[in-house]
Amino acid sequence: MSNEIKIFCPATIANLNCGFDVMGLCLEGIGDEMIIRKVAEKGIRITKITGADLPLETEKNVAGVAALAILNTTQSDFGFEIEIHKKIKAGSGIGSSSASAAGAVFGINELLGKPFTKHELVDFAMKGEAVASGSEHADNVAPCILGGFTLVRGYNPLDVIKIESPSEIYAVVLHPHIEVKTSDSRAVLSPTVSLKSAITQWGNLGGLIAGLYTKDYELIGRSLNDVIVEPARKHLIPNFDKVKNAALQNGALGSGISGAGPSIFALCKGETIANTVAKSMRNAYTDTGIAFDIHISKVNDEGTKII
Amino acid sequence: MSNEIKIFCPATIANLNCGFDVMGLCLEGIGDEMIIRKVAEKGIRITKITGADLPLETEKNVAGVAALAILNTTQSDFGFEIEIHKKIKAGSGIGSSSASAAGAVFGINELLGKPFTKHELVDFAMKGEAVASGSEHADNVAPCILGGFTLVRGYNPLDVIKIESPSEIYAVVLHPHIEVKTSDSRAVLSPTVSLKSAITQWGNLGGLIAGLYTKDYELIGRSLNDVIVEPARKHLIPNFDKVKNAALQNGALGSGISGAGPSIFALCKGETIANTVAKSMRNAYTDTGIAFDIHISKVNDEGTKII
Repeated sequence: MSNEIKIFCPATIANLNCGFDVMGLCLEGIGDEMIIRKVAEKGIRITKITGADLPLETEKNVAGVAALAILNTTQSDFGFEIEIHKKIKAGSGIGSSSASAAGAVFGINELLGKPFTKHELVDFAMKGEAVASGSEHADNVAPCILGGFTLVRGYNPLDVIKIESPSEIYAVVLHPHIEVKTSDSRAVLSPTVSLKSAITQWGNLGGLIAGLYTKDYELIGRSLNDVIVEPARKHLIPNFDKVKNAALQNGALGSGISGAGPSIFALCKGETIANTVAKSMRNAYTDTGIAFDIHISKVNDEGTKII
Repeated sequence: MSNEIKIFCPATIANLNCGFDVMGLCLEGIGDEMIIRKVAEKGIRITKITGADLPLETEKNVAGVAALAILNTTQSDFGFEIEIHKKIKAGSGIGSSSASAAGAVFGINELLGKPFTKHELVDFAMKGEAVASGSEHADNVAPCILGGFTLVRGYNPLDVIKIESPSEIYAVVLHPHIEVKTSDSRAVLSPTVSLKSAITQWGNLGGLIAGLYTKDYELIGRSLNDVIVEPARKHLIPNFDKVKNAALQNGALGSGISGAGPSIFALCKGETIANTVAKSMRNAYTDTGIAFDIHISKVNDEGTKII
């Protein structure tokens, strides 16, 4: 293997309605590119960043911290240089920081000769993700590295289950160019929920997982509801209800907030419906006057990869 | 078909730790028997009950009310007699009333020429179950009728998913001969839970469903945790922790409260481990001085059936 590889680090959608803090999926059409280079000098250096204004200091950079986490487990007498070419906008709610963390650990693992499994890489990537979000969580880095749908069952120890996507699932993502601060999207959540709502939520999560395994698109659709987080957060996103209703009325299986927002996603069965849904979501957003872009993507079952 | 059939109505375990109010499974070795007879006289009559002191009046009897629910959807110029031979003790926490409701609707559906699917029967059986529990819920009647594991995704409308059991799963049930009042087991539950606990619970429920579909016994075991209901209820059951710990130390995948108690269940991989676990649970209960019995059963994938 060459000492330099180029990596595609896909965008991801976390939460998926009923799966708050545990579910995620990997996108195909949108992602960052990174170049990882094995060099004689020890340690990790971020040598170049394009597409975003991010710190070059290794310890302050998501990719740098994730890279150190994996490198420090080895006794290497060499180091790595990292170039980051951002395509996923920071703060869009589709896993921008996770992509950087995932790409760094994936690329270094490749150049080390793959000492770690993809599941193990999730653990390292979480360390980087924590730089951006303030806490270690895996709901974006897991689907970014593993591809498909992922369930984070629990954290002590990290237990991630990958679920292959039913082949016809497409995601539509509308990204409004506004900032929703993570602190705001956390602050609107009540620290307690009613037991009744919690039961509704876990019934739906069970249905979602069952629907994914049995490739039952209608069950997936019936399960894509969120009675806890979406009602509290949707007011932070202009026209959320209008966009979601447009998606559902035009055949989407479900729709919700991507990650902590502001992006709104819809899942659809088949590309034709996804195109119709994307058009309806676009129409439902224009009257806000807010700039936005829309992505249509199949679920990416491979995850982060060498290109 | 004869005008009289004999039915086996299996016991069931509801909740299954993380699956409070949504999960259940069907047992094989323990259940009631019922005889359903098509007769010229219209309406539903309970003609005989053995093994329990239950009301013969149709409107006060779980089986009677369930039977009326299905009969009233038809314009029959005949009726049905029902004999109930209880083997499942009332208040044991393994679906005694659900078995009666399930048996009645299953038997009548057979004698009507099966106009309804098994999934549709769950709806009728819930009406009977409500006589015993005060509210319509499906977490025992669903596995009793459908067999295997069942997930009640939601109620408006009723949405039940059957999941075939991995072939090696055995259940052990220890039934202490004490009464835990439903009102008490409801009263100890807080109407609110922390969002953090709810996330832990639905992560585990997702893991349980994933483990069942992929027949990953270890994942099933890791997922069988309950951070919400069990901590509140276990004090109502003498020696609960001791019995559970004995089961886990002897190789059970998981252990918890069956339904609202007082029965304690353990799930195991294979009959040999189930026997060892049963022995350890027995040993852990004897010092209470409370009479109890123990059942060991494979998961029953067929559910209620003609015998």
